[in-house]
Amino acid sequence: MNGANGSNGVNGIGGCPISKATLGRLPQYLQYLKSLPATHAETISATAIAKGLSLGDVQVRKDLAAVSGAGKPKVGYSLAKLIDDLERALGYEGLTNAVLVGAGKLGRALLEFDGFEEYGVRIVAGFDCNTTPVPIGHQSKLILPIRDLDAYCTEHHVKLGIITVGQGSAQDVCDRLVAGGIEAIWNFAPCPLRVPAGIILKQENLALSLAYLKSQINN
Amino acid sequence: MNGANGSNGVNGIGGCPISKATLGRLPQYLQYLKSLPATHAETISATAIAKGLSLGDVQVRKDLAAVSGAGKPKVGYSLAKLIDDLERALGYEGLTNAVLVGAGKLGRALLEFDGFEEYGVRIVAGFDCNTTPVPIGHQSKLILPIRDLDAYCTEHHVKLGIITVGQGSAQDVCDRLVAGGIEAIWNFAPCPLRVPAGIILKQENLALSLAYLKSQINN
Repeated sequence: MNGANGSNGVNGIGGCPISKATLGRLPQYLQYLKSLPATHAETISATAIAKGLSLGDVQVRKDLAAVSGAGKPKVGYSLAKLIDDLERALGYEGLTNAVLVGAGKLGRALLEFDGFEEYGVRIVAGFDCNTTPVPIGHQSKLILPIRDLDAYCTEHHVKLGIITVGQGSAQDVCDRLVAGGIEAIWNFAPCPLRVPAGIILKQENLALSLAYLKSQINN
Repeated sequence: MNGANGSNGVNGIGGCPISKATLGRLPQYLQYLKSLPATHAETISATAIAKGLSLGDVQVRKDLAAVSGAGKPKVGYSLAKLIDDLERALGYEGLTNAVLVGAGKLGRALLEFDGFEEYGVRIVAGFDCNTTPVPIGHQSKLILPIRDLDAYCTEHHVKLGIITVGQGSAQDVCDRLVAGGIEAIWNFAPCPLRVPAGIILKQENLALSLAYLKSQINN
């Protein structure tokens, strides 16, 4: 359902499609607005949001206009309505199916973490080299054999793949996810991945963060 | 033990202190070199490393010179020796004590993850609002009451604090960690923190990554 101009088919104000670039920034706005103290005024200006997020004023006005129309002159946006509009545009109400590949230490920790659904993502299964399904944690998520990965993704309309295997097999897993019709990849393996054009890739590197911190501490 | 020029007391080639800026980049070099395939030549040039990491050639030469001397002309560095020298400079052999504050879903997942010691960091205790110590996971890490946080950090020479509480209490926890003599903070709470000069702060934002990915998927 890709629209023109890199839209992903989400419609904003007046039925106009919202560009992927704008959509990519909406989570930042939403997180910022939700982080404001309960004592904050009921309205907020685009300028204040721009300042809080170190973004350009014009950029913020344009992004918010696509989602929630223009703010009132000298008043700004209603905070509650803006949060509603952002959540609607981001489609948090619909759950996106995800799989996680690599049930090692980090993989199991993420599988047991049930906070992803707050962000509209449900991990429907884990995959590993194991050939027998085993229940994990209190949620009894299955760990399935990795040879079934592509077929499972296609059959269950999985849109997001989370990679927590070692760097030796990360590219192979990535290729299988792409073959299974995945649209986005969240990579925790400490190595760069090659993906075809149109596939979204987000790299996390917790190990690098930790090594960086360790290097800055006076032993 | 802070040396001059922002050094953290780590000595490199010829006993010269390595600057914190250089030390901060060493984990990247180490991770990159370790990610090279086993079939890679036994040597590697500073130019190849610079290209692989999208860093400047001069920067790489200067950083590696501080740790491992100069590479051989037209040959470069011995890969094995360079990895050894980087690991020694980063002090991976010595374990740094860390505490984790906030034993919610993410906090417990991180407490149960025992891969941090590979990076020279040992989580010695978790803290939460609970007033009774409870064992967690197969490693039986204790979760202690948060009122004891500052005193525990001072007593156990804790250098690193990992924050996994909600945004409402993250700044308070951060202040207590600083009062306890912590040198670096790894913040998973989705909000910015204020720290005194000299305290290292690394912000992670898994929720924002996930929300970004979700926004880019065609529903």
